[in-house]
Amino acid sequence: MKKEPVYYSDYLSLGNILNAQHLESFKEGNAAHDEMLFIIIHQAYELWFKQILFEVDSSVKIMGQPNINDNTPELQTVVHRLNRVITILKVLVHQIDIMETMTPMDFLDFRDLLRPASGFQSWQFKTLEAKLGLQYDERHGKEYYTSQLQQPEIDVIKKAESGKSLLHVVNKWLERMPYFDNIDNWKDFKVESNDANIHPYWSTYRNSYSNSLAEAERNNLDTFNAIFIEGKEDGQLSAKAKRAALFIMLYRGYPIMHLPFELLNNLLEIDEQMSTWRYRHMNMVHRMIGMRIGTGGSTGKEYLKAALDKHYIFKEIAQLTSFLIERSKLPQLPSSLIQHLSFNMPE
Amino acid sequence: MKKEPVYYSDYLSLGNILNAQHLESFKEGNAAHDEMLFIIIHQAYELWFKQILFEVDSSVKIMGQPNINDNTPELQTVVHRLNRVITILKVLVHQIDIMETMTPMDFLDFRDLLRPASGFQSWQFKTLEAKLGLQYDERHGKEYYTSQLQQPEIDVIKKAESGKSLLHVVNKWLERMPYFDNIDNWKDFKVESNDANIHPYWSTYRNSYSNSLAEAERNNLDTFNAIFIEGKEDGQLSAKAKRAALFIMLYRGYPIMHLPFELLNNLLEIDEQMSTWRYRHMNMVHRMIGMRIGTGGSTGKEYLKAALDKHYIFKEIAQLTSFLIERSKLPQLPSSLIQHLSFNMPE
Amino acid sequence: MKKEPVYYSDYLSLGNILNAQHLESFKEGNAAHDEMLFIIIHQAYELWFKQILFEVDSSVKIMGQPNINDNTPELQTVVHRLNRVITILKVLVHQIDIMETMTPMDFLDFRDLLRPASGFQSWQFKTLEAKLGLQYDERHGKEYYTSQLQQPEIDVIKKAESGKSLLHVVNKWLERMPYFDNIDNWKDFKVESNDANIHPYWSTYRNSYSNSLAEAERNNLDTFNAIFIEGKEDGQLSAKAKRAALFIMLYRGYPIMHLPFELLNNLLEIDEQMSTWRYRHMNMVHRMIGMRIGTGGSTGKEYLKAALDKHYIFKEIAQLTSFLIERSKLPQLPSSLIQHLSFNMPE
Amino acid sequence: MKKEPVYYSDYLSLGNILNAQHLESFKEGNAAHDEMLFIIIHQAYELWFKQILFEVDSSVKIMGQPNINDNTPELQTVVHRLNRVITILKVLVHQIDIMETMTPMDFLDFRDLLRPASGFQSWQFKTLEAKLGLQYDERHGKEYYTSQLQQPEIDVIKKAESGKSLLHVVNKWLERMPYFDNIDNWKDFKVESNDANIHPYWSTYRNSYSNSLAEAERNNLDTFNAIFIEGKEDGQLSAKAKRAALFIMLYRGYPIMHLPFELLNNLLEIDEQMSTWRYRHMNMVHRMIGMRIGTGGSTGKEYLKAALDKHYIFKEIAQLTSFLIERSKLPQLPSSLIQHLSFNMPE
Repeated sequence: MKKEPVYYSDYLSLGNILNAQHLESFKEGNAAHDEMLFIIIHQAYELWFKQILFEVDSSVKIMGQPNINDNTPELQTVVHRLNRVITILKVLVHQIDIMETMTPMDFLDFRDLLRPASGFQSWQFKTLEAKLGLQYDERHGKEYYTSQLQQPEIDVIKKAESGKSLLHVVNKWLERMPYFDNIDNWKDFKVESNDANIHPYWSTYRNSYSNSLAEAERNNLDTFNAIFIEGKEDGQLSAKAKRAALFIMLYRGYPIMHLPFELLNNLLEIDEQMSTWRYRHMNMVHRMIGMRIGTGGSTGKEYLKAALDKHYIFKEIAQLTSFLIERSKLPQLPSSLIQHLSFNMPE
Repeated sequence: MKKEPVYYSDYLSLGNILNAQHLESFKEGNAAHDEMLFIIIHQAYELWFKQILFEVDSSVKIMGQPNINDNTPELQTVVHRLNRVITILKVLVHQIDIMETMTPMDFLDFRDLLRPASGFQSWQFKTLEAKLGLQYDERHGKEYYTSQLQQPEIDVIKKAESGKSLLHVVNKWLERMPYFDNIDNWKDFKVESNDANIHPYWSTYRNSYSNSLAEAERNNLDTFNAIFIEGKEDGQLSAKAKRAALFIMLYRGYPIMHLPFELLNNLLEIDEQMSTWRYRHMNMVHRMIGMRIGTGGSTGKEYLKAALDKHYIFKEIAQLTSFLIERSKLPQLPSSLIQHLSFNMPE
Repeated sequence: MKKEPVYYSDYLSLGNILNAQHLESFKEGNAAHDEMLFIIIHQAYELWFKQILFEVDSSVKIMGQPNINDNTPELQTVVHRLNRVITILKVLVHQIDIMETMTPMDFLDFRDLLRPASGFQSWQFKTLEAKLGLQYDERHGKEYYTSQLQQPEIDVIKKAESGKSLLHVVNKWLERMPYFDNIDNWKDFKVESNDANIHPYWSTYRNSYSNSLAEAERNNLDTFNAIFIEGKEDGQLSAKAKRAALFIMLYRGYPIMHLPFELLNNLLEIDEQMSTWRYRHMNMVHRMIGMRIGTGGSTGKEYLKAALDKHYIFKEIAQLTSFLIERSKLPQLPSSLIQHLSFNMPE
Repeated sequence: MKKEPVYYSDYLSLGNILNAQHLESFKEGNAAHDEMLFIIIHQAYELWFKQILFEVDSSVKIMGQPNINDNTPELQTVVHRLNRVITILKVLVHQIDIMETMTPMDFLDFRDLLRPASGFQSWQFKTLEAKLGLQYDERHGKEYYTSQLQQPEIDVIKKAESGKSLLHVVNKWLERMPYFDNIDNWKDFKVESNDANIHPYWSTYRNSYSNSLAEAERNNLDTFNAIFIEGKEDGQLSAKAKRAALFIMLYRGYPIMHLPFELLNNLLEIDEQMSTWRYRHMNMVHRMIGMRIGTGGSTGKEYLKAALDKHYIFKEIAQLTSFLIERSKLPQLPSSLIQHLSFNMPE
């Protein structure tokens, strides 16, 4: 059966896309030139949010499987797609330059017509935060964040919050790391510090870490115990998952560790780009409206600043950096384990 | 009368924008993940093309008036809006990074389903080129460029081609520069080289230019005569307009010359950004399909390369750089003229 | 006299530049590959800081004259050079991407060898902050900020702090704005609100501003009075200077206001780029060392975060945005004044 | 033994770096403000070229070993360092924005003082091209390219040209790919097209490729034979190496193929960034001097344009894209081979 020919305009639904700009100020008969920019830049942001959600959804789906076989391309795919998310976020940060070509006086020409519409009503952005792993309890302005949304939009966000987030499935995936459970992997391991309650690798590592601390850093050891041994820290990653993540960072040089390391790194990079976006956005809003009240009724900069500080999603992974030690001081892994971290090359 | 409240999703027509992605590969039941990216990035490009067209249209409208009063904000407005166009173009160049996250193998998964759709069918881009000043006769692949478009789209392009372009109205505006016609402005001018057929300023300037040339550049003088005196060069700018543009570049330090200089500079910057976009786009296509044939039937890189070299729109302005001389060698303007280039400040 | 020929390598002193990388880890015989990057990126930053200082110095010199004649190119020059500073700062922000290619584990390989060297010891950066207008009393970590510098470096910073900063000379320049003092300029002004103690323009403007406030913004009026009338606010800009700056923002459409508006805008953009740089730098340090102690002994992220919040230099200008009103509500300037804001064009 | 404390200024040799700007125009007593920028931007470029050379040298060293064990971190290291090179190149492209803040008139103020210095005399850049793999015979303007260099600089370039380039060692590394030689790997392979002179995999692949071609692309098959079978194409990659590279692109999903794929991709990205740099640089020179003659005596834009077209270094790898086929049509690899492409995971 022959396929119908496809034409560019139809394929891209340009009729819908290019006729979706309805300027309030033009309706009022008092055309404000810059309102077109205001609409189009927000539409461009929302298009890209859709794309990011599409990539995050597919990453959650892959990572959320009961098991991921490292001999399939699945981890490659996730790393690649999160890299794409990062690339998109960098463009979104850059895109703020365009918004900044609108001066405060030009915004004033149509600002009052928009009430109570507000960027805070981007349900896609809130859904994205939730799907990455931001929990409702961690949100700044909890009561407020859905107050102006319509029910179907709220439903989408709530569904994302109650579903498995990327952070959640990464936690499960980290917990499944198999190397510590099998005692055979460790029979040749050179234990340097023994603690009956702890896996010999981790008591040895803790010892090395302790030796690496400067005087003023001594209480980092308590934090080490709280995080990796006692699992006392609040948060979404278990002590077991954190140990696995630290292990990946320390031994990223082994073949099977490479992609997991890239994955963790991509999560940190996503947080960093999102926070850079929030920061530049906050500054831009401040420059645009100063201490006036936002169109959606928020107090503008103050709200954004609080969200900026609280909405780091992968901070538990970022925190692990504090517990690395020099490569030359790393415990040597036993060869029985190393073979499981390696390619099965011909003799 | 109270205005209806405005909500973000409605205001931005997000229903239309976010439901406009119809993946061919999903219809075929053989979902190609990266087709979503392919659609969304093209939609984002088209949204921004709409914005650029909006700014260019408003600039043509202002510049195309029979007269522009320098004591109104109109020239400021045009410079500001063209600056915005430049800022957008920079983001569009950056956006190619996103497209490059699609590997050739991933594109192959859905490429055949798109025929004969092709980026060459972007009527907005062709309209933009025409509105800036690209003439039909200058196009690479003239016969080809509308062959796959629908009649209403062709009509838009043809209308843009037959209307006044930005280059056209800039030419007229430059020709109206009033300073040379009034002999009173020049009565104190120190003529250093006399030529009965030429305004004393330009015979003097030509003399200085001639003195500035290195041995190997001697025939630049012939080009100078051809361009500025005889008006022999083909092109869309008259000799009179080119003299005015050169004068602006040389004396940009006088208050009334500042914005005209910025305007000319912005036109060059638009050309540069568009050519950088074309260049990166060409490389990206080459990396994606090599020497295969494009979905629209073009020969890919070769077509793009030819267009790259031919589609400089403001090249006649760029060319003027060859005819500048050192500031310290510039003919001194007479005070009778200078007062017309200055602010009317209180004593 | 014939000039000596100039060669690229000599002209650029490449011998000095390219032999200035002395890696501590190579001395120790334990070469850490990434130390080269660490040195070169800091050297690149310092080169650019030198360039920025060069531009800021020249801007302070021009703006610090007893009078600036708007019919000279001087203001153009300052705006152009500050634009260059902004362009450089954008590259410096981008440059953090390069630093981020160094992983925490790779930094650990040579980090201990650097003590107590630290980026906090960049005397050029501190000098830059001072020359822009950051005052000693506003610095975060006052006691600390010169503790590890050598005396000649401290002297440079102290000299910058005691000299005229860009903010200082801009304040003086704003205060000299002549339009309000001459009563003749205002004889046709339509006063809408009279207050014997205030210039009729500002009582009228205050009235319009008051009318523009939403209910929840009512106390903005008190701030308006404190800032523009009573001059109660602490800071480096006087009430008179702030009124002039606001006037520029409101009437930027008049020819003589255009460059002053660009100048104020550039100052805000410099602050924004510097704060974006600080923010990305802080995140990068956090990712690199977590909650370990910096090589210079600082507590890393916490120090940087406090500086980020305090070191906005032109915040008094940024704040003015809160006091703008819609263009259509602006008091109409009298024609006797307008002629002084305009070009002296021929009839 | 206690180490000496290290101070920032000393560590970075800031004395050398920040006193290496000697402006010709200042010597002449006719200070041209923008000459400082001109010097500093070139110094910044040269610093970064040193860093790029450092990364390329280390990559050549690793890749040039007689054998690379995929179970060491060596390939990871090379991919990581080439990624850094790409990140630096992106900043270098961006840096052209800074140069463009210098107007042609401002350059004219000191341009004549520089003769015959010229950017063409950057021996580091030429060395970089040679170390990546640009051969002397491929250079545009062969006779010309060292004409103004000093002997020690020429020696460095010549040594780089006669040594092993990155392209050379990559070719050798590709040729060593072991999978085709061992017949046991292929015993279960489903041959679809037999050709006694060709490995069964490649006759089968050729058949699939042939079937994928559109009518107008039929002669791609001849090119396929010339490149992959007969090895008739000139160039630095052998037919064997090209087959290996194509195989990597096709089967990047298998674990052991992931880093080789990233490596090839990075080479293409380096070419792309370098060509983008050359393109923007060419446009910038054109805008700066038009059709005047460069300070080094070159004909400016024309030279740069010719170099742009000829200096693609990894074009033989880029070309492979033309010979990919859809993933669903790929020959299925035999399980005896697949195990050698996989991790050695516990049962």
